[in-house]
Amino acid sequence: MAAHPDTYPALLLIGDGLGDRAVPELGGKTPTEAANTPTLDRLAAECESGLMDPIGAGIRGGSDTGHLAILGYDPYKYYPGRGPFEALGIGMDVQRGDLAFRCNFSTVDENLTVLDRRAGRINEGTTELAAALNGLQIEDVTCFFKESIAHRAALVMRGPGLGQHVSDVDPHGEGVQVWEAHSTVEGDEASAKTARILNQFVRKSYELLNDLPVNQARREQGLPPANIALPRGIGVSPDLPNFNAKWGVKSACIVEVGLVKGLGNYLGMDVIDVEGSTAGLDTDTEAIGNAVIEALKDHDFILCNVKGPDIAGHDSNAQGKVQIIEKIDRMIQQILDATDGKLILMFSGDHSTPVTYGDHTGEPCPILFWGPTVRRDNVTTFGETAASSGGVGRIRGLDVVPILTSYMGVQEKFGA
Amino acid sequence: MAAHPDTYPALLLIGDGLGDRAVPELGGKTPTEAANTPTLDRLAAECESGLMDPIGAGIRGGSDTGHLAILGYDPYKYYPGRGPFEALGIGMDVQRGDLAFRCNFSTVDENLTVLDRRAGRINEGTTELAAALNGLQIEDVTCFFKESIAHRAALVMRGPGLGQHVSDVDPHGEGVQVWEAHSTVEGDEASAKTARILNQFVRKSYELLNDLPVNQARREQGLPPANIALPRGIGVSPDLPNFNAKWGVKSACIVEVGLVKGLGNYLGMDVIDVEGSTAGLDTDTEAIGNAVIEALKDHDFILCNVKGPDIAGHDSNAQGKVQIIEKIDRMIQQILDATDGKLILMFSGDHSTPVTYGDHTGEPCPILFWGPTVRRDNVTTFGETAASSGGVGRIRGLDVVPILTSYMGVQEKFGA
Repeated sequence: MAAHPDTYPALLLIGDGLGDRAVPELGGKTPTEAANTPTLDRLAAECESGLMDPIGAGIRGGSDTGHLAILGYDPYKYYPGRGPFEALGIGMDVQRGDLAFRCNFSTVDENLTVLDRRAGRINEGTTELAAALNGLQIEDVTCFFKESIAHRAALVMRGPGLGQHVSDVDPHGEGVQVWEAHSTVEGDEASAKTARILNQFVRKSYELLNDLPVNQARREQGLPPANIALPRGIGVSPDLPNFNAKWGVKSACIVEVGLVKGLGNYLGMDVIDVEGSTAGLDTDTEAIGNAVIEALKDHDFILCNVKGPDIAGHDSNAQGKVQIIEKIDRMIQQILDATDGKLILMFSGDHSTPVTYGDHTGEPCPILFWGPTVRRDNVTTFGETAASSGGVGRIRGLDVVPILTSYMGVQEKFGA
Repeated sequence: MAAHPDTYPALLLIGDGLGDRAVPELGGKTPTEAANTPTLDRLAAECESGLMDPIGAGIRGGSDTGHLAILGYDPYKYYPGRGPFEALGIGMDVQRGDLAFRCNFSTVDENLTVLDRRAGRINEGTTELAAALNGLQIEDVTCFFKESIAHRAALVMRGPGLGQHVSDVDPHGEGVQVWEAHSTVEGDEASAKTARILNQFVRKSYELLNDLPVNQARREQGLPPANIALPRGIGVSPDLPNFNAKWGVKSACIVEVGLVKGLGNYLGMDVIDVEGSTAGLDTDTEAIGNAVIEALKDHDFILCNVKGPDIAGHDSNAQGKVQIIEKIDRMIQQILDATDGKLILMFSGDHSTPVTYGDHTGEPCPILFWGPTVRRDNVTTFGETAASSGGVGRIRGLDVVPILTSYMGVQEKFGA
């Protein structure tokens, strides 16, 4: 008589930018190794760990490409550039076929020479600025525009015959004039049209923003005016299969990164916002943990992302990275206590952001699988070095959901 | 001056469904770890082991897809559905382009409502039943039909213009009427023809079987009549390159699973039957070992499969799985003794069938390579946990024959 197979829900938990290198300030340990993580260490001892290349060995990925791969979508096939995810992440309506860009509010002079690419990291009044640009009609194309955090914003172009192969308008430096976009593919009329619309949009944004009350007030306060919108990171919204249908689960997404939130939305996951989630080192991981516990009541697959490790990595803040990892460790214990350990947990990163480097690198992240059905290995602590001899070996991001759904007991058999 | 390389024959030995999880009844060990396997432990200590994902990390495979991959044929490219292998496995003539189905003898009432999908697991008289259906001509299509074990059988359709995209007739449940097949691709005339033939075949099978003496006798004994044949698992016979030509070997196939036997046949391996091989826990592994020893006299590549570990896994029979693994261990020693160790041995599984789960799962199988030319590592026993830190690392099924043929000394160089 065959055992009736139990099924378990899964928590795919990402410490953003988790992976790291040996940090002299931490005595040559990585932040994960230096952190006091009794829960992660116990879980590593009980089950299996290894190394995971989100995209491929040595590939420096982003949060978008990394999460795409870990959720089972090959980014080489599906990644559309950052724009669409950025727009989705701030709640814009993005439809299949739309072009989307991320944007900066910047400061230019009357010759459109860039004086400050981030408009003094403007923090207030961007809603009014965005409203002045939103809905702009250029030829037969409608431009939707929305502010994000600080100087950031997104632009969605909707209209017929738009191509995606256009050069940048953002000169990515200061003291340089805004560039004219042009099609990068000869004879590509659709991209030529996009370039034409884009150049008009940039010029009109200067005309519409320069004298707005927000900017007059900024000038009076000695602050640089946010008097132009500079789009970049063009992408056409991709044809991504629905996550729940693809994997046979009911999923929720509790994440701190706008563009991953956008991805979750696009994939048909239930996106859950958490009060107290700041995407910073001060984030309320207990509140995030409670949201996960609550979501597990009516979902069997949760994607959760804590942004802090990446923030600390970018800021070369070793102690900060150690501390946020310790907070995540306590959050995991909180979730295990509330669920009586009846779930499959995967913990890893979406890329490495070493504090010694201050940006994303291509090294793999330590990965842990834990749960009632999970295999054992000889590893006894959690961290890059220990994981490198673990039973998981070295896998890729695309392997993660198949491994999880097998441990969950919900994967269809291939063959007989 | 390079040594003149010796060449060695290889034994690719599969314990069907070998991989497992921690089993509480075995003190948290896997059956492979709990089993007393002095030979496998010695071989692991002398050479190298690791983990092998037959198809890919986390993928729940079958014996058909698993063996295809391990023999070097990517199942995502070559897997045709189960029908063709099933038919080949019971000795039917399957030609390229034929459509093949696996079938159940089932019990239906006069409205073709399914009363018992397995006709009371009928065990006798199926030869007479199959003979009544074999050779049936429907339009310009010939239907070949043969019984397999118990209520199982296979159907091969041969004729022009048959498509493979048809829906099921088997309702996969009881108290439900047999379904009408239809083409699943709009405008696909070939599949519409297959559906038409299939529906006629099913109805005719009821007309031909219902009153046969076998079924009259069953009714008199109070047993459900096997009065319909329900095909499923349609597949078009695939274009698989010959194994010997592909790898430069002369191969034999000594396996206990019908569909793997079918695969061996189709690949051009010499299929050798063994008296006493039962595909159960009571199988005569000594007889199988002797057949391997005999086959090694005029073949340099033997595929051998012992079905028992999978049977025990499906039955959640931990002790049974331990015991069949111990029998395999003794069989390996028997083969090594007879060949003076002059061969390359690979031992692994075609998928995991954990006794705690009772069905196939996606975890990798422990894999062992041993022989005079094989590398060494630090592993000293055979089993999932020990293998997870072995020198082989984590490989895929498609890697196995290249590794073997290199150790055998028969692989062509790629490059100069």
